[in-house]
Amino acid sequence: MKAEIITIGDEILIGQIIDTNSAWIAEQLNTAGFTVLRKFSIGDDRTEIRDTINEALHRSEAVIVTGGLGPTKDDITKLTLAEMFGGGMVRDEETYERNRRILEARGIEYNDLNKGQSLVPAQATVLQNLHGTAPGMWFERDGHVLVSLPGVPFEMKELMNGEVLPRLEKRFRHGKVIHKTAITFGLAESVLAATISDWEDALPDYLHLAYLPSPAQIRLRLSAYDIEGREEAAEIDRRFATLEKLIPEHFIGYGDDTLASVTASTLSSRGNTLAVAESCTGGALSACFTSMPGASEYFLGSVVSYSNEVKASVLGVSRADLAAYGAVSEQVARQMAEGVRRLCGSDYALATTGVAGPSGGSPDKPVGTVWIALATPDGTTARLFTFAKLRAQNIERASANAINMLRLHLLDASKR
Amino acid sequence: MKAEIITIGDEILIGQIIDTNSAWIAEQLNTAGFTVLRKFSIGDDRTEIRDTINEALHRSEAVIVTGGLGPTKDDITKLTLAEMFGGGMVRDEETYERNRRILEARGIEYNDLNKGQSLVPAQATVLQNLHGTAPGMWFERDGHVLVSLPGVPFEMKELMNGEVLPRLEKRFRHGKVIHKTAITFGLAESVLAATISDWEDALPDYLHLAYLPSPAQIRLRLSAYDIEGREEAAEIDRRFATLEKLIPEHFIGYGDDTLASVTASTLSSRGNTLAVAESCTGGALSACFTSMPGASEYFLGSVVSYSNEVKASVLGVSRADLAAYGAVSEQVARQMAEGVRRLCGSDYALATTGVAGPSGGSPDKPVGTVWIALATPDGTTARLFTFAKLRAQNIERASANAINMLRLHLLDASKR
Repeated sequence: MKAEIITIGDEILIGQIIDTNSAWIAEQLNTAGFTVLRKFSIGDDRTEIRDTINEALHRSEAVIVTGGLGPTKDDITKLTLAEMFGGGMVRDEETYERNRRILEARGIEYNDLNKGQSLVPAQATVLQNLHGTAPGMWFERDGHVLVSLPGVPFEMKELMNGEVLPRLEKRFRHGKVIHKTAITFGLAESVLAATISDWEDALPDYLHLAYLPSPAQIRLRLSAYDIEGREEAAEIDRRFATLEKLIPEHFIGYGDDTLASVTASTLSSRGNTLAVAESCTGGALSACFTSMPGASEYFLGSVVSYSNEVKASVLGVSRADLAAYGAVSEQVARQMAEGVRRLCGSDYALATTGVAGPSGGSPDKPVGTVWIALATPDGTTARLFTFAKLRAQNIERASANAINMLRLHLLDASKR
Repeated sequence: MKAEIITIGDEILIGQIIDTNSAWIAEQLNTAGFTVLRKFSIGDDRTEIRDTINEALHRSEAVIVTGGLGPTKDDITKLTLAEMFGGGMVRDEETYERNRRILEARGIEYNDLNKGQSLVPAQATVLQNLHGTAPGMWFERDGHVLVSLPGVPFEMKELMNGEVLPRLEKRFRHGKVIHKTAITFGLAESVLAATISDWEDALPDYLHLAYLPSPAQIRLRLSAYDIEGREEAAEIDRRFATLEKLIPEHFIGYGDDTLASVTASTLSSRGNTLAVAESCTGGALSACFTSMPGASEYFLGSVVSYSNEVKASVLGVSRADLAAYGAVSEQVARQMAEGVRRLCGSDYALATTGVAGPSGGSPDKPVGTVWIALATPDGTTARLFTFAKLRAQNIERASANAINMLRLHLLDASKR
């Protein structure tokens, strides 16, 4: 069963707003068993609206349109729909009355612009919008369905959940779809693909694998379409359990799990605490943890020692070592980790020191050189990384790899 | 001059990722004088890729495609382009060699999947991707241009700025467009609009004003299209100079200026230094500064004192005050700022302490309550803010308002 999504609004086409509606709608439609074929964004233009809707409605069983339903004259979606489906405009009494009450309560005059919000194309089945003044509308043509919704995210979501999805489910009887996503870290896409190619080849035909790479991690999604019973979900679980054993050190978790979230869970559940000393990551590593709710359970604090003086005076790094080896060195990384662990009284401590760039590199320590250290109750380890040229990327990769050092240590400790 | 944007990837159509690339590209194209007619998102599907590219390339002078260029077999954009433009695939030696060096440096085997990244359609002009393994590609047909770029945002942006936009400008000689964008902070859109309405009404007809709001700031863009001489640029400068005087405290700067960048410039140029003590912002405030090149010129360091113990033992906050007033209080904010200023020996210090949420709120200190303090050579000030319910938003707004306190102090000091 195919679906398409059309978002309408000039502000999307000049890049003024990022369209988050269509991702949310796509996920809902997908979960409801539709394959989303295309998403369009177009301007408040009569020809564009008519052409894209005609195209999409011809190709796909369900088309969801958002936006262009405001009271001002640049919003022309409703007029265009009335032209397309014929029969002119009629007043929806329920919307007319509700809008009158809403505006009265806010002390706003019920003028012609506002009254226009209750006019709908004669062929539309009205979907009552209880949270705004623009109603949703449902049209049918040649067995296909077109739904027009307001662009305000909250109103759109309420209408989708309350009206559109239940009606679509009733209107189109189709098979269920399931997805599960595994998160991996530390293997390049090509290496991951080579490592798991036998596993991939052995997947049954009804399971579809997708690679979803991002700078920080690669997600692997298994999907089954038009499923009947519970067998497929169990099979996905079994296949992923095999994958876990295949790449144990690179397997992070499922769904919304991240390096930081699984590490935080382990620390919390064991009652362990963490402190951080940052040079090149400059606060970003701490923020990976503190951006998550509940961080105060295990995160005690951190020192961003950007100057050598702060490394020495606050963290107790040896001034002689700073002079002899430089700030970007194994010795300094180790002493930073040990220093902040002592200072905060934590079980574990991570430290980063490196050349984030764009300047500050030298022949033997080029931009992208980063030392990361992990101090534990059983001693300290340190590792040298060589990242790339871009500052933002180096900060992100140094943060991710620092968390991964701790994650692997905790994983290893759990096996002993 | 018309343009369209096509983003390719199954992950967009199932709503797993929000497409931010197309908004950024739309803004760049718009600034370069193109009208973006449509944006499409489609899956990794040969027919869909071919059909949408043909449609778009027929309608518009420039079509930018992102995504589907990974090494794995679900990424088929390049193969589809080779079929469409004919001539098969050839190896791009520069990409081949660079990828070999990159992978060798990372200790990754240069296997067939990786080598495949350097194969490009014979008809493509290769746009070298210096930050990733998938090259950009430029095609021409019937006087229209198709550009294929990797979907990784920073690789895409580097290619757009370094290659695509300059080439588009050269390729399509169209009426010159100039834009200048002013950055404002601290006024809601409706208040800003009311405050500057006389200024707005007095603008000449050939200058177009756009409000570009985001959570952190509102940008005001003045544009002139199809301009002839230098008169329009000078007029834009004059109009913005008037605006500066109209909202002096809310006027941040121009273009890519941010609260942090203008504050950093002032600190650097005066030879002043900064230290930071963070509780609720958890490293994010420090990262606002350290994410910018050259931060070490003025940024000495910070302490993320997430636990009360670290506030007391590292920053010297009074344990009695912590017990009497709580961690989220004016007293503690002031002592944090003064403590980290003393510890790092900086001229200025900022401190944040608040309830980021979602838990930890109380009737008199609900989620969103944040105290921010600024310690200076002339004394310490503190201010109470009440933000909203969402953790990420509270962290962002606390960081922005902390920087703004320092910015206003420096602005004020420059007048004395």
